[in-house]
Amino acid sequence: MNVANPRFDVYEDRCPTRLVLDRLADKWALLLMLRLTDGPLRFNQLKRDIKGISQKVLSQTLKKLERDGLVTRTVYPTVPVTVEYALTPLAATLREPVEALTRWAETHMPAIAAAQQAYDAGIETR
Amino acid sequence: MNVANPRFDVYEDRCPTRLVLDRLADKWALLLMLRLTDGPLRFNQLKRDIKGISQKVLSQTLKKLERDGLVTRTVYPTVPVTVEYALTPLAATLREPVEALTRWAETHMPAIAAAQQAYDAGIETR
Repeated sequence: MNVANPRFDVYEDRCPTRLVLDRLADKWALLLMLRLTDGPLRFNQLKRDIKGISQKVLSQTLKKLERDGLVTRTVYPTVPVTVEYALTPLAATLREPVEALTRWAETHMPAIAAAQQAYDAGIETR
Repeated sequence: MNVANPRFDVYEDRCPTRLVLDRLADKWALLLMLRLTDGPLRFNQLKRDIKGISQKVLSQTLKKLERDGLVTRTVYPTVPVTVEYALTPLAATLREPVEALTRWAETHMPAIAAAQQAYDAGIETR
């Protein structure tokens, strides 16, 4: 099944790729990386752009992505201090698959909403 | 930003695409759909193949995917009853982006593990 690398198998619970999938399968991490694809941004700008994210979750998600080598944190000695977040070259390789996934979500939203209504209506009449 | 459909914006918290992203950004849902790409499977086969998934989570995830119109549930009147799960044509269009994401995870696993070790070592020496 694994064509990319025969040493890894995402179906195996002890496989480290599961940890990566955990990170990717995180709505906030995906939205953050997507938002950073156009260039570095400050914390407050990210908070403003990604509607509904809390200060705490934004901070935690950035820290996790920094640990994974997907985001860099650069501090500029201005007054007050400026902190900028940017994607690493590793994260840049994620752009394509992440965009494909969000594009899918945006394209097929009406079909999913229709399926949910039909399902819920079916449940009610059972 | 949204090229696929100007009516939707995934950065907007009240946008329904966020709900879709919630579903896609679910490790178990991704693994399940990935596992079903080769054809329909029974509940127990899925449970065996996807290491670490509990009976409860598998059942809940299948139900959510069925509600979203991504998975069908077919009951065959055998003794005992056979229940088979299959991807819908809508889910089939997800194959490409989901496979791209897991391929990325498998390919870049070593780079991420190295970044995590460097980050943790940096924390310790701070």
